[in-house]
Amino acid sequence: MTALRTLIESTGFQRFIITVIVINAITLGLETSEAVMGAAGGVLIALDRLALAIFVVEIALKLVAYRHRFFTSGWNLFDFTIVAITLAPTGEGMAVLRALRILRALRLVSVIPSMRKVVNALLRALPGMGSVLALLLLVFYVSSVMSTKLFGADFPEWFGSIGASFYTLFQVMTLESWSMGIVRPVMEVHPLAWVFFVLFILLTTFAVLNLFIAIVVDAMTEVEHQEQDETRTLVMVDHEVLMAEIRALRTEIRALKNDA
Amino acid sequence: MTALRTLIESTGFQRFIITVIVINAITLGLETSEAVMGAAGGVLIALDRLALAIFVVEIALKLVAYRHRFFTSGWNLFDFTIVAITLAPTGEGMAVLRALRILRALRLVSVIPSMRKVVNALLRALPGMGSVLALLLLVFYVSSVMSTKLFGADFPEWFGSIGASFYTLFQVMTLESWSMGIVRPVMEVHPLAWVFFVLFILLTTFAVLNLFIAIVVDAMTEVEHQEQDETRTLVMVDHEVLMAEIRALRTEIRALKNDA
Amino acid sequence: MTALRTLIESTGFQRFIITVIVINAITLGLETSEAVMGAAGGVLIALDRLALAIFVVEIALKLVAYRHRFFTSGWNLFDFTIVAITLAPTGEGMAVLRALRILRALRLVSVIPSMRKVVNALLRALPGMGSVLALLLLVFYVSSVMSTKLFGADFPEWFGSIGASFYTLFQVMTLESWSMGIVRPVMEVHPLAWVFFVLFILLTTFAVLNLFIAIVVDAMTEVEHQEQDETRTLVMVDHEVLMAEIRALRTEIRALKNDA
Amino acid sequence: MTALRTLIESTGFQRFIITVIVINAITLGLETSEAVMGAAGGVLIALDRLALAIFVVEIALKLVAYRHRFFTSGWNLFDFTIVAITLAPTGEGMAVLRALRILRALRLVSVIPSMRKVVNALLRALPGMGSVLALLLLVFYVSSVMSTKLFGADFPEWFGSIGASFYTLFQVMTLESWSMGIVRPVMEVHPLAWVFFVLFILLTTFAVLNLFIAIVVDAMTEVEHQEQDETRTLVMVDHEVLMAEIRALRTEIRALKNDA
Repeated sequence: MTALRTLIESTGFQRFIITVIVINAITLGLETSEAVMGAAGGVLIALDRLALAIFVVEIALKLVAYRHRFFTSGWNLFDFTIVAITLAPTGEGMAVLRALRILRALRLVSVIPSMRKVVNALLRALPGMGSVLALLLLVFYVSSVMSTKLFGADFPEWFGSIGASFYTLFQVMTLESWSMGIVRPVMEVHPLAWVFFVLFILLTTFAVLNLFIAIVVDAMTEVEHQEQDETRTLVMVDHEVLMAEIRALRTEIRALKNDA
Repeated sequence: MTALRTLIESTGFQRFIITVIVINAITLGLETSEAVMGAAGGVLIALDRLALAIFVVEIALKLVAYRHRFFTSGWNLFDFTIVAITLAPTGEGMAVLRALRILRALRLVSVIPSMRKVVNALLRALPGMGSVLALLLLVFYVSSVMSTKLFGADFPEWFGSIGASFYTLFQVMTLESWSMGIVRPVMEVHPLAWVFFVLFILLTTFAVLNLFIAIVVDAMTEVEHQEQDETRTLVMVDHEVLMAEIRALRTEIRALKNDA
Repeated sequence: MTALRTLIESTGFQRFIITVIVINAITLGLETSEAVMGAAGGVLIALDRLALAIFVVEIALKLVAYRHRFFTSGWNLFDFTIVAITLAPTGEGMAVLRALRILRALRLVSVIPSMRKVVNALLRALPGMGSVLALLLLVFYVSSVMSTKLFGADFPEWFGSIGASFYTLFQVMTLESWSMGIVRPVMEVHPLAWVFFVLFILLTTFAVLNLFIAIVVDAMTEVEHQEQDETRTLVMVDHEVLMAEIRALRTEIRALKNDA
Repeated sequence: MTALRTLIESTGFQRFIITVIVINAITLGLETSEAVMGAAGGVLIALDRLALAIFVVEIALKLVAYRHRFFTSGWNLFDFTIVAITLAPTGEGMAVLRALRILRALRLVSVIPSMRKVVNALLRALPGMGSVLALLLLVFYVSSVMSTKLFGADFPEWFGSIGASFYTLFQVMTLESWSMGIVRPVMEVHPLAWVFFVLFILLTTFAVLNLFIAIVVDAMTEVEHQEQDETRTLVMVDHEVLMAEIRALRTEIRALKNDA
């Protein structure tokens, strides 16, 4: 067991896996070109199957080495899911699943530590955004229901159902063609529609920007706190040293007094 | 009275209201689907009326419990207005008022304390933006009047009145189709129109970005101030302790002198 | 003279001018409506002339009171220019100058101190942006000449001259219809055009964002510096007090020694 | 040699080069106008050749003066490359190379020290962005392969090859016409396409914004660190002074004790 773990955690093994992921990502990219597929399609498919086999063996080894503890790491779950998706049957209607094979390239993130750190940093920003995100979702839901009721009958393509409205409002929030594409046509039927959409844009833009401001302020607060902590530690240590010196002084004076 | 307030402020009562709001939000969402309305329209409408009845009773209880002090809380006014809107007659031309019923879902914000905190935080950012917002509004008014005078005759749909110009300039500020959709067509009649619009975009974008920079800097200043205050308090306390020690030392030396 | 200055600087006089500016802004706004002009056009035009007369008298009074020192204030120059524009002949081809009359509403900024402060704050951010702005302008000039040479012959409307290219590239920088509107059509003739435009977008977006990052960092540095200064002053004052105390102690000990 | 270096590094020589660059930039700009070329084309071309000759001589002088050390400076390499590009044959199919002559205007950046500082500052921000950029590139590669597989057959113009998909996804990331132009048409064939694109937009926008947040936080951390360092130095120096004073005190008391 320990020997297996030493193997799995060795740099050589990890470099080998990184190489396989990169080669696999390239072959999957080449598969999109019909010219390349015509010339060397068999080789590409064989390489893809080989890479998959290596990934399956890798995960099997890890399962044997770590057993149930394998599933305690989010990154292992990530690797497991990505490989599992690929093992699913690739029949007729499965074009989407075949396209998902390229997700294996994302395993680079779980294998290279510096990439892992970046993703962890991005994920760490999420909880602080939780309550603003919940508020944003509520505003989206309320606006979707309202726009479906108000404009759904006249513009079924954009506001025909809550789902359609949700998508259209997401587009409006990204400001893409919101006026020329959506609101001006709607205003020809409902002249006051601008009130709804302008309020929606102001509200969601303000919320989204506060989301990112919160991330900046959080990151800065941490930096500030660390630096101040260092300063305060220095002040405290200096204080202790001074106090010790003065107390020693007092002892000596008391000794002097007793002598006198 | 006190018993009533205890009831209203109990966690059980608040959880009950949250449940009613969520169920009501779902039924109002389902009402947008014709298929669901065909199958269970009667149930949905009955549930909606029940939810409304519960909200009316809730507010009535609060009015009895808090009397005139009910209206001193902004959140109570918010709840009151949202329920009042729904009680308005829902006749023929009242499709808009019926659509506003979903606003009740926003009561989640006033009922869940963590959501309330987020909205309060967003609102707290507003006063600091006051003077830049006033400046922005002035720029919008001046630009609207000017563009109405300059382009109103040739492009009545976009600049026919101050209101139309205001809306079009808001669209230009969000950069949506500003050039291909608005300014290039205008330039075919008024070749120098780009001067007006490019200046407008530079001015308003700069002002809006300063708005958000102001929010970041405000938030950071507060963090900085708190941390520094802590450091300064530490420095002062340490100083007091040292001074007390040294004064005690002096007293002892003086005693020594008098002894001598 | 002094009496005149006291009058001009009195709150009553300033409030009167503010009122005139606001009324004038409203009448100029109403002039854009044909319906209102039909009903009360004469009154509006009379009010506008009255407002202009008041502004002329105001500036004349200030010129008398402050003489050449009148022109040392940027805000006075601003007021003077805005009123001067309006006094220009308003003949046939002067529709633009007539439209510029609404610029008088901007005098609110120079008259209300809190608005003045906001504009001063915005202007103060400019010098720090100087060198990045110069770089951005250089990139724009080089890109304009290059795109005129490369695409001018095939797309004269967008890249026919350096001016046209400059405007089109400004549009591309704001990301408005850059791909569907401009680059995709250009790519049909010049398949590699995307290299030029993608580089241009990456470069200018990066530069513009650094511009705003610089403003945030500048503002924060000032806040940080002030707070730290306060802390350092406290540390230094405390140090002085301690040193004085300890020196007094030493003097007493020396006295003790001499006594002994 | 030293005389040559003194000449090259003299302010007069540098000002002369700046003047030549500016004049050359203007003549290259004027060359885009057919009217100007008709009137004074010969002069412009002569001036351009003269400027090029001056640049070649300048670089030759520098090569003689600094020898192999010439190539140790990035800015010299930049100048060398820009001039070398222009010396390439300007035959029939070389319209692009002729258009690249205006890149010489960018030499202003390498010649004016304040511009150099700005570019250095921008470049310094890049390494901190390295890992997020790598992640972004990986997401782009994976998304390109996936969209080529999923939508390539139905929309060859947008997703026909990995390159085409890359460009289209870059457009989607800038939010230009992403919905009305790309995703809505795609959804008519693949109704679930919005899942892919909305996820892509959320992911890349979040990553790009974290990129810029990282730059702000980095810059602020440096400022913060410097200020805190200054405060800590003050605290330490004050501490040393106090300690010296107290130790002197102790020595005197010990002397007193020995005397007694």
